[in-house]
Amino acid sequence: MVRAHPAVPKKMKKEKKIKPSKELPLGFVDRQEKELLTRDFIISNIKEVMIKYGFQYLETPSFEYTESIGKFLPDKERPDQGVFSFKDEKSWLSLRYDLTAPLARYIAKNYLEIPKPYKRYQLGTVWRNEKPGPGRFREFLQFDADYVGTKNLQADAELCVLISEILERCGLTKEDYTIKISSRKLTKELFDEIKIEPGEQSAVTLRALDKIDRLGWEEVKKILGKGRQDKSGDFTKGAELKEEQIKLIENKIKQTKPSTSDILEIIKIFEAYNFTNYQYDPSVIRGLEYYTGPIFEVNLNFEVKNSKGKTIQFGSIGGGGRYDNLVSNFGNLDCPATGISIGLDRLVYALIQRKEFNIKSNKPVVICVFSKDNIKDYIKILKKLREANISSEVYPGEGNLKKQMQYANKIGSPAVILYGDDEIKSGKPTLRNLTSGKEQNIEIENLPNEIKKIL
Amino acid sequence: MVRAHPAVPKKMKKEKKIKPSKELPLGFVDRQEKELLTRDFIISNIKEVMIKYGFQYLETPSFEYTESIGKFLPDKERPDQGVFSFKDEKSWLSLRYDLTAPLARYIAKNYLEIPKPYKRYQLGTVWRNEKPGPGRFREFLQFDADYVGTKNLQADAELCVLISEILERCGLTKEDYTIKISSRKLTKELFDEIKIEPGEQSAVTLRALDKIDRLGWEEVKKILGKGRQDKSGDFTKGAELKEEQIKLIENKIKQTKPSTSDILEIIKIFEAYNFTNYQYDPSVIRGLEYYTGPIFEVNLNFEVKNSKGKTIQFGSIGGGGRYDNLVSNFGNLDCPATGISIGLDRLVYALIQRKEFNIKSNKPVVICVFSKDNIKDYIKILKKLREANISSEVYPGEGNLKKQMQYANKIGSPAVILYGDDEIKSGKPTLRNLTSGKEQNIEIENLPNEIKKIL
Repeated sequence: MVRAHPAVPKKMKKEKKIKPSKELPLGFVDRQEKELLTRDFIISNIKEVMIKYGFQYLETPSFEYTESIGKFLPDKERPDQGVFSFKDEKSWLSLRYDLTAPLARYIAKNYLEIPKPYKRYQLGTVWRNEKPGPGRFREFLQFDADYVGTKNLQADAELCVLISEILERCGLTKEDYTIKISSRKLTKELFDEIKIEPGEQSAVTLRALDKIDRLGWEEVKKILGKGRQDKSGDFTKGAELKEEQIKLIENKIKQTKPSTSDILEIIKIFEAYNFTNYQYDPSVIRGLEYYTGPIFEVNLNFEVKNSKGKTIQFGSIGGGGRYDNLVSNFGNLDCPATGISIGLDRLVYALIQRKEFNIKSNKPVVICVFSKDNIKDYIKILKKLREANISSEVYPGEGNLKKQMQYANKIGSPAVILYGDDEIKSGKPTLRNLTSGKEQNIEIENLPNEIKKIL
Repeated sequence: MVRAHPAVPKKMKKEKKIKPSKELPLGFVDRQEKELLTRDFIISNIKEVMIKYGFQYLETPSFEYTESIGKFLPDKERPDQGVFSFKDEKSWLSLRYDLTAPLARYIAKNYLEIPKPYKRYQLGTVWRNEKPGPGRFREFLQFDADYVGTKNLQADAELCVLISEILERCGLTKEDYTIKISSRKLTKELFDEIKIEPGEQSAVTLRALDKIDRLGWEEVKKILGKGRQDKSGDFTKGAELKEEQIKLIENKIKQTKPSTSDILEIIKIFEAYNFTNYQYDPSVIRGLEYYTGPIFEVNLNFEVKNSKGKTIQFGSIGGGGRYDNLVSNFGNLDCPATGISIGLDRLVYALIQRKEFNIKSNKPVVICVFSKDNIKDYIKILKKLREANISSEVYPGEGNLKKQMQYANKIGSPAVILYGDDEIKSGKPTLRNLTSGKEQNIEIENLPNEIKKIL
């Protein structure tokens, strides 16, 4: 079956013919081998850990009905930003902006069939139709693991343990990362105490507290109060809290000893796992309103540089928490759940910068072409090398020997094989090591072993 | 850094509040473990072969400017179908509908930096905004390999060889698949001979010939002539060729011996590779207009059943060909190229149905919870099993022992471990094999070995 290619949208056709652009839309990037191999390395570690921990592998599609995932979109602060949505024949479709909302839809759809509890993991791209800006992406690869259908806090504890195991498999030491934990019970108790109503005021307060890391307490206090003007002059309306309310919040958030029962229980479970690489930090808030219990944030502690070489405060690579009421949005389904989410592009970006980290990318040995008439001889060598699993190729272009050498150097080839008339007569091709420049004449049989020595 | 979730599109907000749907939009599916593990298996084979053949790993983003990929959309037959497009601040963005158009854009953007020739492979989702229908998907996973910047026909030949190696690594035998080859030179020579002009008439003719497999010659002849009415009554306008022109086409397409110089050369190279699993078939046309030389189609020969259990003509899982002029659309760039593309979802679907194929999915051993007070003891066993890389978990829910057994059976667990008060005293947990029903009391030290015997 042959699929014909689709047509351009009608609106485009009416516009005058434009020369195709070589550029990418802002917020989207091409990714090269080193980044992709690093990502594959992380993903293979993730999969091994997920199997060991007994999670099921699931994939939901990129698109969902907007109404299925739109209900959980809480960001009133930035109404112009959002999802990529698309009007279908009758309904609106959206590209998923995370993997949690589609999971809730999946659970609701398959509620009777799934085991309870249900443990699943997913790897997938998510999209945010944000206003493009420098370093602001609109497409991300995420890893999510969730426990659905249980209030058992061992689930929450194990999420932290498994993320830790994944990071250490990727080569991080205990000094390199911290899992910060807190609980929405804390803010709930606090908001009850100082009489902040759920809704707008509560949401603004949570969002303000979530910025302590980035803005510091003094700036956050302004947002808790009347509002804050940022450097650009933009004014963010505040939560309109009174000074004494703000004081009480600050005291609570600065406490270093956990007080809520959920965190105390999780810490006990951590002890049973001999897991110590966490830190209780009540200033961890997480942006989403739907969290109902323990919340986590995964932070990297080592130095990361931005594209200009400046050391930056890298912040978290992910986090999560308990969301006991999310699935019930789809109907009368009692389905408590907890989950964690890691931004893989961010982890790749950080990992690649570590001195200790070195991903090997195999570049092919190039068999040079002296004459097309001898292609059988070149392919004979090629087959020998590939049977030995050596990355190799007969020069695939049409240039002369000089061009072929330039090509081999350009692609970072470790060696070339020269098999001209003289060598064919003697049956001993020349192996030229492109790092040392050394040449050797070697029987075809022995080529694989000699090449493996220099790889 | 915490990302707040995006907002619903304005238009949605204005509509009245809808109860979220549990369903998926037509043309999109959730994918389960077996399918995903099979896909991973194929992908790991692809990556190994690609490294061995010396290809570079590249990933372009999901979105491109519509103008960058829209120029190559040739399907005038189905103007209502097309791509998923979004109007950005100034421009139209589209989700890619294949991986070739984005590659052409990538080459144009990085023309000076890339090696020439440039060999890259990519794995990625593509989207088609087709009218949804039964078995019609709108999201596909594709694998593409391309040689860019060379007219060397060894590239075309090697594409067939490498696909063959990938399929055989996935467990197919030479009887299970055929790579059909033909050349657009053949149709070009033919069209010159019988004076079909490039453009509309040529396009309709190519599309008609592409349907020989599905419709048979008699129906195709109608499309080559005045037109054809299908079973539903829809009329497809024909190419308006004269009877003698049609006769000449039929003769040429029914020839079984290759005549064009490119195919003759490729067959010679196949011989050097000792590659025999191809078939010259001039009725292979491929839908796209941009092909300029050799074209290929990958066909599976074994029985495949549809979702209703009926044996179906499965058709091709992919194909490709030479497209020497595509990149030049972006400017005055001389960049001949050839590539192949495999639809991984289709390959997964077919592979899963083979008797010989069996992908192993690891289900966790469940350690039952008698009392939350003994969680440390359960975790002690859990750590032992996981250290031995055994998929395992402490029951993650809150049910009693009966519910825990139901859960273990539901998830397909191979065994449960019972560690009640008596067993804790003796230090010997009970291992219950859920397949045989047998129970044994085993020292914790020996549990991993005993479990491995029954996995």
